[in-house]
Amino acid sequence: MPRQSVYLEDIPLPEAWRRISSALEAAGLWQPLGAETLPLDQALGRVTAAPVWALQSAPHYHAAAMDGYAVRAGDTAAAADNHPLQLAVDPDGPARYVDTGDALPAWADAVVPVENVQPIGAAARPEMIELRAALAPWTHVRAMGEDMVATELVLPANHLLRPVDLGAIAGCGHNQVVVWRRPRAAIIPTGTELVPAGAAVKPGDVIEYNSLVLAAQIEQWGGLATRCASVPDDLAQIAAAVAEAARDHDLVLLNAGSSAGSEDFSAQVVERLGTLLVHGVAVRPGHPVIAGLLAGQRPVPILGIPGYPVSAALTGEIFVQPLLARWQGQPQADPPAISAQMTRKVLSPLGDDEYLRVTVGQVGDRVVATPLSRGAGVITSLVRADGLVIIPRHQEGLNAGETVTVRLYRPAEQIARTIVAIGSHDLTLDLLAQFLAERAPDDPRGALRLASANVGSQGGLVALRRREAHLAGSHLLDAETGVYNLSYIERYLPDTPVVVVALVGREQGLIVPPGNPQQLRTLADLSRPDVIFVNRQRGAGTRVLLDFEIGKIGLGAQEIRGYGREEYTHLAVAAAVASGVATCGLGIAAAARALNLGFMPLFKERYELVIPREHYDSPLLRPLLAALRDPRFQAQVAALPGYDITHMGQVVAELG
Amino acid sequence: MPRQSVYLEDIPLPEAWRRISSALEAAGLWQPLGAETLPLDQALGRVTAAPVWALQSAPHYHAAAMDGYAVRAGDTAAAADNHPLQLAVDPDGPARYVDTGDALPAWADAVVPVENVQPIGAAARPEMIELRAALAPWTHVRAMGEDMVATELVLPANHLLRPVDLGAIAGCGHNQVVVWRRPRAAIIPTGTELVPAGAAVKPGDVIEYNSLVLAAQIEQWGGLATRCASVPDDLAQIAAAVAEAARDHDLVLLNAGSSAGSEDFSAQVVERLGTLLVHGVAVRPGHPVIAGLLAGQRPVPILGIPGYPVSAALTGEIFVQPLLARWQGQPQADPPAISAQMTRKVLSPLGDDEYLRVTVGQVGDRVVATPLSRGAGVITSLVRADGLVIIPRHQEGLNAGETVTVRLYRPAEQIARTIVAIGSHDLTLDLLAQFLAERAPDDPRGALRLASANVGSQGGLVALRRREAHLAGSHLLDAETGVYNLSYIERYLPDTPVVVVALVGREQGLIVPPGNPQQLRTLADLSRPDVIFVNRQRGAGTRVLLDFEIGKIGLGAQEIRGYGREEYTHLAVAAAVASGVATCGLGIAAAARALNLGFMPLFKERYELVIPREHYDSPLLRPLLAALRDPRFQAQVAALPGYDITHMGQVVAELG
Repeated sequence: MPRQSVYLEDIPLPEAWRRISSALEAAGLWQPLGAETLPLDQALGRVTAAPVWALQSAPHYHAAAMDGYAVRAGDTAAAADNHPLQLAVDPDGPARYVDTGDALPAWADAVVPVENVQPIGAAARPEMIELRAALAPWTHVRAMGEDMVATELVLPANHLLRPVDLGAIAGCGHNQVVVWRRPRAAIIPTGTELVPAGAAVKPGDVIEYNSLVLAAQIEQWGGLATRCASVPDDLAQIAAAVAEAARDHDLVLLNAGSSAGSEDFSAQVVERLGTLLVHGVAVRPGHPVIAGLLAGQRPVPILGIPGYPVSAALTGEIFVQPLLARWQGQPQADPPAISAQMTRKVLSPLGDDEYLRVTVGQVGDRVVATPLSRGAGVITSLVRADGLVIIPRHQEGLNAGETVTVRLYRPAEQIARTIVAIGSHDLTLDLLAQFLAERAPDDPRGALRLASANVGSQGGLVALRRREAHLAGSHLLDAETGVYNLSYIERYLPDTPVVVVALVGREQGLIVPPGNPQQLRTLADLSRPDVIFVNRQRGAGTRVLLDFEIGKIGLGAQEIRGYGREEYTHLAVAAAVASGVATCGLGIAAAARALNLGFMPLFKERYELVIPREHYDSPLLRPLLAALRDPRFQAQVAALPGYDITHMGQVVAELG
Repeated sequence: MPRQSVYLEDIPLPEAWRRISSALEAAGLWQPLGAETLPLDQALGRVTAAPVWALQSAPHYHAAAMDGYAVRAGDTAAAADNHPLQLAVDPDGPARYVDTGDALPAWADAVVPVENVQPIGAAARPEMIELRAALAPWTHVRAMGEDMVATELVLPANHLLRPVDLGAIAGCGHNQVVVWRRPRAAIIPTGTELVPAGAAVKPGDVIEYNSLVLAAQIEQWGGLATRCASVPDDLAQIAAAVAEAARDHDLVLLNAGSSAGSEDFSAQVVERLGTLLVHGVAVRPGHPVIAGLLAGQRPVPILGIPGYPVSAALTGEIFVQPLLARWQGQPQADPPAISAQMTRKVLSPLGDDEYLRVTVGQVGDRVVATPLSRGAGVITSLVRADGLVIIPRHQEGLNAGETVTVRLYRPAEQIARTIVAIGSHDLTLDLLAQFLAERAPDDPRGALRLASANVGSQGGLVALRRREAHLAGSHLLDAETGVYNLSYIERYLPDTPVVVVALVGREQGLIVPPGNPQQLRTLADLSRPDVIFVNRQRGAGTRVLLDFEIGKIGLGAQEIRGYGREEYTHLAVAAAVASGVATCGLGIAAAARALNLGFMPLFKERYELVIPREHYDSPLLRPLLAALRDPRFQAQVAALPGYDITHMGQVVAELG
């Protein structure tokens, strides 16, 4: 049912926070929500709500620091190597056996270790001991209060408790600790189209997983999350669910319906049940976010979270995390940051802060950031992201080569252990990434990650020229020589010494619906009026192959319906065929089989890795090159249809 | 009962790991222990045991990306601003209303947003819509597979699951995930002297908290910990407890009894129940660690953990963490590291790797590391540590000024927010640290930490000269002028502009047992034969005061019994009196009151903060200076006995 939009604001983030914080401050909610007392064994990761003062000293008595004999240091003054001194062993001195940790007798002020004395009499129960060195007072004694003195400050308030902190609290006499209580958040998914994860889906159904992500975020940030049942798009039902959730939670997250469309009821619900503070923030993704305060004896903040998964997850980071931190006496998260150079120009709308997901790699001595998909629906852009670049709202974008600050999602150490592959996509690269990840525990430095960006073969060579990648997958046929890749490498990388390593031989052919209902046999069939083709993007090796082969048979691009629809991977081509958008595409057998489609083999081609010499020789790539020669990996690839592993791992050429 | 030591080895850490890993490898335990399948909402923080491949594409259909009208792009070719085009609204086209997320009709290939059309007829149910711009195919459509294509690799194995990962797994059709199972570890505390945290203690009792720390570490590292009941020092009972724990755990930690003393049974237990692999590793603290493999149908590794709390916690980091990581397909922890300059020379025994706890501060443009207590019993050395410096076993120590690598326990960002105070100790500094910590949430950059090292007043001025601290607490009386601090500052810091800020006026006097049983009245009483004094260290303001005042009355140091026993803080002096080691000491009233002791006021003195101008003017110190002038803070200090806050926060002098 069409309905004209309600007004969606465009409030800069700091202003949105000003509105939220002053409303919460007025409601007494801009501070921790209360404290609770916990036994120490339940307090890991919690935050102290009060300072911890030592109840008693540690040690609470003068303790022997060695197994040996308690003595008076003054009694030993005359002992020397050439002047052995004998002391009688007796509970009242001058020498008494003590184990490490035993209380020092009141008359003693030092311990001589058992290995420094000569027992006289039965070794097990000597009557005397002989010393050959004098002791200073307090030698081998842990004095009372050495660790903590009663009444001193052990931990301040607002301290996140680590394992050793729990030990110190116990060590000075406590068996419990006062911590801020965990904030309780309810997540209400709304939408008639929602189905649970794992359910059978039909077109129009949306798998409800935002509440899963938000609940996990809340848990990670110290809160307690309740995932409520999904509510259909109905104002009254949503309002009832919100009112119910507000009863026993500190925060309500309503997802989605926060925009201004015909089924976006969140703003109305908030206005009905309380005060709408913010509707629309100048951030992308995440723009249609709502903040409000539900009225009642106990006011409860509510956030309307946008529906697209990237928007939802980023709204969690931007709005929920700071609130939960505040409620637990903690500062906002301060992610590690790194400087990197952008590999691409990015245009960004003026007026909005854009949260750009990027991969980050260290290539030679440069750290480079490559933008990922900017679609708010592409959750894998967050999964694959190494970090975020925030493009401020007064800036129109970023230039290629521009230095940016990346807020990292992974430790910087892991970035240095990432192999960046940019170029043509092949399923073998997924298998290779997996093979390397499985072997991660063998390397104490951590997982070797293979991060692939699929931009086609020529795009990969360009990336190598720009020094943005460690290697590029390529299968570019030289139409004149019939040789793969080499002439292209000479053209794109004239000054860069490179090593070309064989990955696989593979079959290219027509990906068609199961059973090949249109009975397609050759490329000439693409001109048939009932055939709808789906193409690969310019620069892709498969596209080069197509253009070369249709040229050979004199078939024009304009004669092929769908030639203009470009996809970026073999699987995307197969998906287009599977969905019925196209009736065929050119691609590899593995992609057809992955989606249970038909395949008509037409050509054989060589898929190779182009690796600049400096990276080929670097320790970073060694495990990858070893994997290519590993029979276990080769067997995995050989199990895929249409792959030839005969030359896998062999050096095809060394250029430059 | 004395007993000569069994042999304790001194195995370098890499060799210890070689022995452990080859024994575990032979037993099939040098790898994850098995997988389990979990619902996604229980999988946060777990590690994938198998790659996750997309079961279905996401979106699994072509979806409208906007609220609007599905159309055929081809139908709109003629629309232009000066040439409006009308399309009939009908379920079968040419235009049909769709909400964001709706499936595109099979006949459509684009969506025109509702705000870009003019409805004709009733606004709620228009019969026609009017367009004024043509659409390209696939405009405002989220194509099937835009996010994930069925069969593609979504996550590799050995991937630590974050909130967005759970979303991606759900989004491609799964509702569960296969993860490595959590290793189960049993912790058996042994020792007849152990008492639980919070219990009343008598001399010789040891509060058992190592199992608390180890269990929290294990939980933090992904394992499941069982804290078993404490077992007395009895070989048979310990062996029985170990055999019992081995039945349903993957790892047994035996704490302590791992050394070679008369009550150290761990090695014997391991030899009785299996194979002793390692007894004594060349690390300090933590040297007497044991590793073994318990025999049985299902062999179980066992670690003997040393008893001192720092040794126990570090043994956790050095031995337990890598094992748990390995068992969960994860690399060893790779803590962030920072380069720093040592502020002190440190001698370290050849042959052992020493794990030196340090505080780290950024003072001006230098990052400096100051060693903390090296005692294995001082758990607060780990609580206060910003990180560890490992002194390799072939090195005899570190020089002052030497550049070292610090493995950080806190984010580097937090280091930059730490005010380093080195100098005289006063309880007010504890209160100040607490006051600043309580206000942490108001600063989005995080807590402002005040890290105090107590080295006495002159030590503080030396630290300022060496540029190791931001400020020094000082109460140094000039015997000739009667003025505090200024002449010392001129002597120690002739070239450094400094600002001197008043903290408190305070009373110094004799700290005596409750009721002052010896009826001490003046310093002259210190020469009485029944009086045992406890002194402060050289350079402490209180020591300067003592030496000045006894000089005035002609009392010699050699006439005071206990003059040679030096403590580093007022509270340590009070603790010595409380324990009966001494019958009096010179110190401040607050320390006496803290331990319920008597106090005989003798002198008034000024305690001031000496702050180099560059730090006084820096943003870092602003909140601290503001706190000194904050009535809430002043009230807290005024509530302590013997303190005068009249001048608190005032600038006393500006020098240089």
